[in-house]
Amino acid sequence: MAPAYKLSYFDIMGLGEPIRVLLSYGALEFEDFRVTRENWPGLKSSMPMGQLPVLEVNGKTAHQSMAICRYLGKQLKLNGKDDWEDLEIDTIVDTINDFRAKIGQYHYQSNEQIKNEYQKTLVDEIIPFYVEKLDAIAKENGGYLVGGRLTWADLVFLGLVDYMNFMAKTDLLSKAPNLQKVKENVLKVPNVKNYVDKRPNNH
Amino acid sequence: MAPAYKLSYFDIMGLGEPIRVLLSYGALEFEDFRVTRENWPGLKSSMPMGQLPVLEVNGKTAHQSMAICRYLGKQLKLNGKDDWEDLEIDTIVDTINDFRAKIGQYHYQSNEQIKNEYQKTLVDEIIPFYVEKLDAIAKENGGYLVGGRLTWADLVFLGLVDYMNFMAKTDLLSKAPNLQKVKENVLKVPNVKNYVDKRPNNH
Repeated sequence: MAPAYKLSYFDIMGLGEPIRVLLSYGALEFEDFRVTRENWPGLKSSMPMGQLPVLEVNGKTAHQSMAICRYLGKQLKLNGKDDWEDLEIDTIVDTINDFRAKIGQYHYQSNEQIKNEYQKTLVDEIIPFYVEKLDAIAKENGGYLVGGRLTWADLVFLGLVDYMNFMAKTDLLSKAPNLQKVKENVLKVPNVKNYVDKRPNNH
Repeated sequence: MAPAYKLSYFDIMGLGEPIRVLLSYGALEFEDFRVTRENWPGLKSSMPMGQLPVLEVNGKTAHQSMAICRYLGKQLKLNGKDDWEDLEIDTIVDTINDFRAKIGQYHYQSNEQIKNEYQKTLVDEIIPFYVEKLDAIAKENGGYLVGGRLTWADLVFLGLVDYMNFMAKTDLLSKAPNLQKVKENVLKVPNVKNYVDKRPNNH
């Protein structure tokens, strides 16, 4: 029987990786369909918004990476213990993605002059600000992002941090011992560790 | 007794408006604290991520506008009937916000040359693409965005569309009869209609 889950994404970590990490955590067998750059133009128009990642679940189609992660987080009981804790998880996930987007503004900037000017703001202001705030939150929660225990926010963080490091051309966690702890705590889960050890590390 | 809810945001619709619409829908009394440009520098560092909107709920502080809307949507029973429908709501909300961000890239661009070049892409490609996709979804759901009935996604849409029209310098719904229907359906709720009729329409 074909697996119930099919993830379509490019052959990189990017926005697909948090979904792969969640599916691996839950030992949910999935087809890891990696679209090549050559095949993408022919597939694009068949995707709901012409974008990837797209997750098929028993024939039903979902898109939007963080919406998919939230859904999987619920299925895997990695959500909050009440509505307020769910709000805290959603908030930190949106904050991580704001940070990712600000780093992406640098990485994807094609105008060299604008890129160089923005690099200074990114390195001197944006990165220290976000890393300090997020590290303080991880400290407060004992090496997790919310509620002092593993939630899908931690898995999203693990799934995005390599992509963010790659785009920022730096190790964002070098001065963030508590965020390193978050990463370690997620990697203590054998299913996740096994997946990470054998995954393709393409950026 | 002070209201249980205090919303801090600038004296514009922007990202605060969907929250105001949701609070109004539920007749949840709230302090609509509008921060002036003059007072903002003194307040900024006291906000969780140096950003607005921020919602206080019985003394607890929340930020990230869409996370707050999702929380209020649950409290007001405007969420999905199951996890999959919640995923559909989250997906359309993220898609609306992707569209908003792409319009914002135009509005907030300070380099005139880049702005003019991007305007063409926005008007010829991005706006028609998103409007057509969203209008088709609204048609399929009978004048709602998800599940053929009112959800918090419809309220978020109503809350953001004026801001998006303002930034895009056009009426995005002029060729979208089904999205107009979504707006009308939300405005059929007397609490929402009353709020919208008397709100400040600042951009």
